[in-house]
Amino acid sequence: DHIIICGYGRNGKQAAKKLLNYKKSFVIIEQDKAIIDKHQTEDILFVLGNANEDELLLEAGVDRASTLISALPSDADNLFVVLSARQINKNLTIISRASEETSYKKLKLAGANNVILPDRIGGDHMASLVVVPDLIEFIDNLSIVGESNINIEEIHVNKLYNVRANVKTIKDLDLRNKTGCSVIGFKGSNGDYVVNPEAETKLVPNSKVIVLGRPEQIKKLNIIYNLD
Amino acid sequence: DHIIICGYGRNGKQAAKKLLNYKKSFVIIEQDKAIIDKHQTEDILFVLGNANEDELLLEAGVDRASTLISALPSDADNLFVVLSARQINKNLTIISRASEETSYKKLKLAGANNVILPDRIGGDHMASLVVVPDLIEFIDNLSIVGESNINIEEIHVNKLYNVRANVKTIKDLDLRNKTGCSVIGFKGSNGDYVVNPEAETKLVPNSKVIVLGRPEQIKKLNIIYNLD
Ligand SMILES: [Ca+2]
Ligand SMILES: [Ca+2]
Repeated sequence: DHIIICGYGRNGKQAAKKLLNYKKSFVIIEQDKAIIDKHQTEDILFVLGNANEDELLLEAGVDRASTLISALPSDADNLFVVLSARQINKNLTIISRASEETSYKKLKLAGANNVILPDRIGGDHMASLVVVPDLIEFIDNLSIVGESNINIEEIHVNKLYNVRANVKTIKDLDLRNKTGCSVIGFKGSNGDYVVNPEAETKLVPNSKVIVLGRPEQIKKLNIIYNLD
Repeated sequence: DHIIICGYGRNGKQAAKKLLNYKKSFVIIEQDKAIIDKHQTEDILFVLGNANEDELLLEAGVDRASTLISALPSDADNLFVVLSARQINKNLTIISRASEETSYKKLKLAGANNVILPDRIGGDHMASLVVVPDLIEFIDNLSIVGESNINIEEIHVNKLYNVRANVKTIKDLDLRNKTGCSVIGFKGSNGDYVVNPEAETKLVPNSKVIVLGRPEQIKKLNIIYNLD
């Protein structure tokens, strides 16, 4: 139930750094021995070799992993890894990097669940900085992952009240009065999202709410409802 | 009062696409004639040449531009462009791309207002997809820039009520009842942000509110308050 990261370049390194912050266990496949030697002292598990070989993927435990992140510099190499990993493990969540727009569909066809184009995200970000600079500053400063200072959380409604007894609405929960947090989103049991849901929205079993708050409010919410 | 984009690679092209959507006027400096020829039919203004030359920057109107986006593939080239542009125009907003983490500080020192590292953003995104997948899906689907389907807006309070008459609070505005939109952020006149502000927050002159809503709610807000 671990994560495999293929490639410890700029992209893979940043993903690893974030996962380390979140105390997730992962192993990195990297073919450059010099890179591994350089980071040997850190608390990171490396497998030396080419992620394009099935033996290496198996050595990293691809058959029992939960997630694979393919962050190699070449789109062709990522495609090869995605296809190989999907063949071995049907239940794996596969996230791949891509440089070219045209690789997006190919990687999806090969079995990737998510494809990330760093230059597209970067370009979007630059344009947004021009058009809505304050908004971007606000959103960039929202913290969604980490140990503390979290601003947004997604919560199963099952954790907020006894869904088997009666179905409550967002209003019934009264999160704003109890914790200070605001409900900004709702994900129905069918997977559909509602932004800024109505107070009357019914919190059916297996739905989720997305809440926004200052760190102290999020902390209060976690304590009151005994979340993680 | 236009925007200059240096480099029409993957990064610059995506920024241009977004700016075009938002009907912002821009000019692109690109040194590869083949790239310009390929996009000649599109409604885009190109200047052929090396952005590292002051004459080219001046030809693109750097002295009267509002913003320069330096999206060249090499960090050294971006540094050169940032420094040159800053020398010519002190009031320019300069946004630069960077590949290496170590270039961030250098580009800031040279005069960039914002430095975007695509691989860092991409790596963060990959890790967040592992840790909080539903939250990432929710946030990615929020639309902040465009003609329609907007979910978030930042609004000067001066546009919401007559700030010179009396100072109102967020509660006094009653945006939720009037438009359906929720206030999720506040930017004080000193520039500090408050996430999920209290209903009693005083909307002093020159402060801003950040509101969240579904597209039809945002539309209602724009109509009622006669925004843009
Ligand atoms: Ca939590
Ligand atoms: Ca507007």
